[in-house]
Amino acid sequence: MTDTRLDVLAIGDAVVDVIARAEDSFLAEEGLVKGSMQVLDADGATRLYSKMSQARETSGGSAANTVAGVAALGGRAGFVGQVAADQLGEIFIHDIRALGVEFLTPPKRDGLPTGRCLILVTPDAQRTMNTFRGAAHQLTAEALDAEQIRGSAILYLEAYLWRSEGPRAAMNQAMRIAREAGRRVAFTLSDIACIGPHRREIIAMLDSGAIDLLFANEMEIRALADLDDVDAAIAAIQDRVRVLVVTCGADGALAVEDGRRVGVPVARIGGGIVDTTGAGDLFAAGFLVGQAEGRSLEESLRIGSIAAAEIISHFGARPEANLRELVDRML
Amino acid sequence: MTDTRLDVLAIGDAVVDVIARAEDSFLAEEGLVKGSMQVLDADGATRLYSKMSQARETSGGSAANTVAGVAALGGRAGFVGQVAADQLGEIFIHDIRALGVEFLTPPKRDGLPTGRCLILVTPDAQRTMNTFRGAAHQLTAEALDAEQIRGSAILYLEAYLWRSEGPRAAMNQAMRIAREAGRRVAFTLSDIACIGPHRREIIAMLDSGAIDLLFANEMEIRALADLDDVDAAIAAIQDRVRVLVVTCGADGALAVEDGRRVGVPVARIGGGIVDTTGAGDLFAAGFLVGQAEGRSLEESLRIGSIAAAEIISHFGARPEANLRELVDRML
Repeated sequence: MTDTRLDVLAIGDAVVDVIARAEDSFLAEEGLVKGSMQVLDADGATRLYSKMSQARETSGGSAANTVAGVAALGGRAGFVGQVAADQLGEIFIHDIRALGVEFLTPPKRDGLPTGRCLILVTPDAQRTMNTFRGAAHQLTAEALDAEQIRGSAILYLEAYLWRSEGPRAAMNQAMRIAREAGRRVAFTLSDIACIGPHRREIIAMLDSGAIDLLFANEMEIRALADLDDVDAAIAAIQDRVRVLVVTCGADGALAVEDGRRVGVPVARIGGGIVDTTGAGDLFAAGFLVGQAEGRSLEESLRIGSIAAAEIISHFGARPEANLRELVDRML
Repeated sequence: MTDTRLDVLAIGDAVVDVIARAEDSFLAEEGLVKGSMQVLDADGATRLYSKMSQARETSGGSAANTVAGVAALGGRAGFVGQVAADQLGEIFIHDIRALGVEFLTPPKRDGLPTGRCLILVTPDAQRTMNTFRGAAHQLTAEALDAEQIRGSAILYLEAYLWRSEGPRAAMNQAMRIAREAGRRVAFTLSDIACIGPHRREIIAMLDSGAIDLLFANEMEIRALADLDDVDAAIAAIQDRVRVLVVTCGADGALAVEDGRRVGVPVARIGGGIVDTTGAGDLFAAGFLVGQAEGRSLEESLRIGSIAAAEIISHFGARPEANLRELVDRML
């Protein structure tokens, strides 16, 4: 792809993760459903934060984690996301640029502060996410750089951000630009909470041919197909996109292209599972890098599995090990 | 100590640590001396941050880490430090309170932003610190709560903050209040950079009887005594304070009281050494808790060693394991 300047350009939530350990009893007291993502307003975020234990802050955001992973895997990555002109915004921009990810979106000087995601990690390594979207959902089409989109082999969009009206308009415009330039468009369903209210719109978007690559986990594909059985759900969706990728937790992952289904088991890199935050994000990173490198579906899935295995071996959703080296050794 | 509300009240830098991995070559390019602490102005901090790799943020500050350790060890702790009314200030206050540390200092609404410490961790687990002091050194005596000081068994002061004029005036006033209430005063020499320009003043402070407990590492005690030999330096200082505590890196630690010298080796808790940031801070926490519990010098040193061993087993200078449980098991 010598005519491109980026392998993957993502549009997504620009948020800083605030990660703390929590007991199951804390989730129960706060009425939080383990493993889920809920959206908080400013007051709700302040209230929950005041009850959380000592935390660490790292840049996050689902699609941002994915392009961080793409860069760590040696891919050329870019990110479009809205932060405010505040300290958390500075941290977000620093971290994504420090990874070599191209980031051009100007911070907003008025409006809400930079978004954050309060993440509670229980002793079983599960993460429960509580997002204050802040500036992230104030992204508009004006923030787009058409040349950047045209120069990217794959445009990657997340449903977390897509479900807000303003950002969705920006994403729709980005998809049109990418499509006209002959680029591929990838979309992740993000979370079941993003699907319910928008199921018909997402199906219509797939049927319009706008999406080449669709990422989902088992719960999400069932929600999108509105079917209880995973295999039936996959069968109902697979012909609506060129490539469908489904992660199945401890059962590995699979991809379907032209009716051909390929599966891989989870990768093991030693060490226990510490924090599952970012597993899906890094899986997508590995798969996208595999595709950008022109690899087979199976190899792309395996790179995804290795990247996911690294991210769950430590706290936080950005890679810590040399991912490229890990993949070259394990693939 | 039933007449006290706190075991340890510390006055120190209120800063957020920005921790990133770095190669030795990066330190060389930036002209940084490994293991040292240097002070940066706002421009210098911005410049260095822009070159650092992806980071994680955790609340820090030497004396603040110490009281975090005191609280994690089951002690009653308080902290006095200046942050600004900004996002990093909110993070600092959240984290210290989440540990159960009493924190009453109002954030400053004008002036410099909350301080931060850019910490580079090289592959050998050594830390090199670059501090933008910001609001932390705008602490004044007005921020003190006399009742809080009078109600604390031990007042703990750090030289990092003491060397600035305004904070030093606040510390002097706090020492007077503590002394009048019959409380003990502890002081840590922090870093050799804090000693050179203030050597005579520190000696005079010791000779005035203001300090009961003095904490130093080998380099610092040599700098204070202005003697190359560690034993000679200890001999020159030990009679100037009731208790002198000296940490000696891999050689363990020692304490001298009334001419009696007690030493302990380093504690081992398994796992490698990941990041030495905070080792001295947590050593002081363990020793102070031992003293607050009325334990012997030797037991206090051993608690210090165990707390230090925990902190160097992971990234960051705030305890992650259940420190009290660890000490109860290992002591």
